[in-house]
Amino acid sequence: MRSVNIGICGLGTVGAGVYNVLSRNSKHINSRANCNIVISQVGARRDNPNCDTGSTDVSRDIFDVAKNPAVDVVVELIGGTDVAYELVMTALNNGKHVVTANKALIAQHGMEIFAAAESRGLMVAYEAAVAGGIPIIKALREGLAANRVHWLAGIINGTTNFILSEMDSKGRDFADVLTEAQEKGYAEADPTFDVEGIDAAHKLVIMASLAFGMPLSLEGIFTDGITKLEPQDVAYARELGYAIKHLGIARQSDAGIELRVHPTLVPESCLIAGVNGVSNAVMVNADAVGTTLYYGPGAGSEPTASSVIADIVDVARTMGAGADCWVPALGIASADLQANKIMDIQDIETSFYIRFSALDKSGVLSNITGIMADAGISIEAIIQREQPAGEDYVNVIILTNVTQEKLLDAAVENIEQLETVRGNVSFIRVEHLDQ
Amino acid sequence: MRSVNIGICGLGTVGAGVYNVLSRNSKHINSRANCNIVISQVGARRDNPNCDTGSTDVSRDIFDVAKNPAVDVVVELIGGTDVAYELVMTALNNGKHVVTANKALIAQHGMEIFAAAESRGLMVAYEAAVAGGIPIIKALREGLAANRVHWLAGIINGTTNFILSEMDSKGRDFADVLTEAQEKGYAEADPTFDVEGIDAAHKLVIMASLAFGMPLSLEGIFTDGITKLEPQDVAYARELGYAIKHLGIARQSDAGIELRVHPTLVPESCLIAGVNGVSNAVMVNADAVGTTLYYGPGAGSEPTASSVIADIVDVARTMGAGADCWVPALGIASADLQANKIMDIQDIETSFYIRFSALDKSGVLSNITGIMADAGISIEAIIQREQPAGEDYVNVIILTNVTQEKLLDAAVENIEQLETVRGNVSFIRVEHLDQ
Repeated sequence: MRSVNIGICGLGTVGAGVYNVLSRNSKHINSRANCNIVISQVGARRDNPNCDTGSTDVSRDIFDVAKNPAVDVVVELIGGTDVAYELVMTALNNGKHVVTANKALIAQHGMEIFAAAESRGLMVAYEAAVAGGIPIIKALREGLAANRVHWLAGIINGTTNFILSEMDSKGRDFADVLTEAQEKGYAEADPTFDVEGIDAAHKLVIMASLAFGMPLSLEGIFTDGITKLEPQDVAYARELGYAIKHLGIARQSDAGIELRVHPTLVPESCLIAGVNGVSNAVMVNADAVGTTLYYGPGAGSEPTASSVIADIVDVARTMGAGADCWVPALGIASADLQANKIMDIQDIETSFYIRFSALDKSGVLSNITGIMADAGISIEAIIQREQPAGEDYVNVIILTNVTQEKLLDAAVENIEQLETVRGNVSFIRVEHLDQ
Repeated sequence: MRSVNIGICGLGTVGAGVYNVLSRNSKHINSRANCNIVISQVGARRDNPNCDTGSTDVSRDIFDVAKNPAVDVVVELIGGTDVAYELVMTALNNGKHVVTANKALIAQHGMEIFAAAESRGLMVAYEAAVAGGIPIIKALREGLAANRVHWLAGIINGTTNFILSEMDSKGRDFADVLTEAQEKGYAEADPTFDVEGIDAAHKLVIMASLAFGMPLSLEGIFTDGITKLEPQDVAYARELGYAIKHLGIARQSDAGIELRVHPTLVPESCLIAGVNGVSNAVMVNADAVGTTLYYGPGAGSEPTASSVIADIVDVARTMGAGADCWVPALGIASADLQANKIMDIQDIETSFYIRFSALDKSGVLSNITGIMADAGISIEAIIQREQPAGEDYVNVIILTNVTQEKLLDAAVENIEQLETVRGNVSFIRVEHLDQ
């Protein structure tokens, strides 16, 4: 049996996982790849106590691996975008296929990297860049190849889902759970990337490109985090039969492409509402198949390694066969990729949950419903909750039917100007994910 | 761009779906396949009003298609095992690749068909044979290639899941829902294949072969249907925090392979417990990735077509490249497939739900718990429910901890011999699916 030599760059959590799983399951993996996969070199600035590299050649310079004449496939697991970009381009320039788990790199520099690979007759694979161990890239690119995708919606950041699950099940507030998540290693010391939705935006852009046949671009994506979410909203949502999830949503319509990451009310009856903790899940709705869902661990050493190795197996099995039989990096031939208008969030149509504090006296509610009616927004449900004793104000929660966000915004502004309403109106988007 | 000619045999529900989706999304599909996929012939005994075959050559003899020199890929969608077997072998003997949606054919004759294909340098693909539109074959064969699978558990028959969902949500009994399912077209006039678990057994065997690297064989599989399930058991299960699902379960352990289809209590907190109606879902637990789940429509015209066309795209894209780069039919090289001992159901360890009717007087329950203790079975929960007024007997429901089925059987026999117990003890297996 022929051998395929791989070089692993980066020996952190994921790198160690890849090394360990490849070693442990080598016989099984080689049978699937139809060749012997040999780790011929590792590049890492330091050793990892969770990974015994034995007699494997370890270099302290990752660029040694990218230039190593013996290496066929470079596995980029260093993260970040600057050095990683340079490393991947060096690997391609030296005739190596590339496997990467790096969502930021693919989202930001994917088009350039894929073009460089294509012109050199090389593959770039990135299953692990989205949703950790879930084979969602393969599902979108191959499993659903017959379909036109209408929309997809995913819990694609384990950190925010862990925080929301804790807020939901225990009534805790955001800051409190974030601290615990940082202690447990589920959140970074600087959590911005996760809790503001930037990481999810990177993953969403990759899935949207695959789903809709568009070039990768972060431009125009709407991103809102979970930092302003209050425990009372999570509780009110439950009362109305919804869970709040931080979703990445991509939808194609005649008006263009929606690309948005934000907290979202989803009906409890929807399978994705039951996805808790650090897990990920992606729903895909497409013309032939209807709705499918893919669930699993969104991060972690061996789950991510599972996806990295699936890519290594694909590359190793097919690298000798020529580019005609390869699945293109974004599923379709690069010449067929077509940029599409990304819709402004103001033009998007969805339902809304809104909450505000209003004086508890007759006529107030009819003022508010009048404003909504004037804006052409119909109301699906209203609940009114007493404040603590001695307060003259009550919490009012409204669920609207589908409306355009700019209409909702205008109505919110009018409601905020009422003398009987105190403070701001907060709102959260609602998705029923039912067709 | 080169052309790949396909011949569709069978123009029923699935055949029409394949024809229609291939026609509607042809530009998109050709870009993914990197070739023009041309329907060069259809073989069908009669036309289908849901499918306008336009100027396509339609033969009334499906064997014309299998022997047509212009056809590269034969798509077998006639169902059944006798003629379908002959058709597939004829296609292979005439040098055609084969795509099929036929679970019974693959489960019963797969080894022979795959060997014939391999010796002739041809591919056989069967994504649509399991779980309709869900790309579960690709996930097991490629997406999880890095892993050793520990177990998988699936709702893989939409008919039984529809019936159980109705029994659960509306308290209806089996026969009543079956009649409705037959009227709605969810169940066949002779429902045996579905409700006795035979269809699920076929699909389970296919997934188990892929997961564990075993030759296909129906031998030794334990199959129990849902016909004896009573609404009261569904209700008691809910009271205990469980849903009853008809699962196909395959597990690998040092003692051998478990292969079993039966009604199963699963905790409500488990995602698969929320899968209702005609949907399918498969959970897979594997060493590197942990637990993943795949959900979607388990049947239907276009969902099934989605999987058939995904196979056509794979075959069309890679057929020119040579067998070395193809994924083997069962994931690993046929020489590496290894038969493994299928465990007797009596030797399997699991938890149990048991229900019986006992005289409502002191000492009865302690007799029963004594029998369980003597058998080495520990009890996790007991509930006792009054019968209608005037009855001296009460319903007793026990949840056991994990025990071997033969021990449970012996205890059940002893309980049934007690004078204070009336009638039979019924039991249902319980799976926690949590590791």
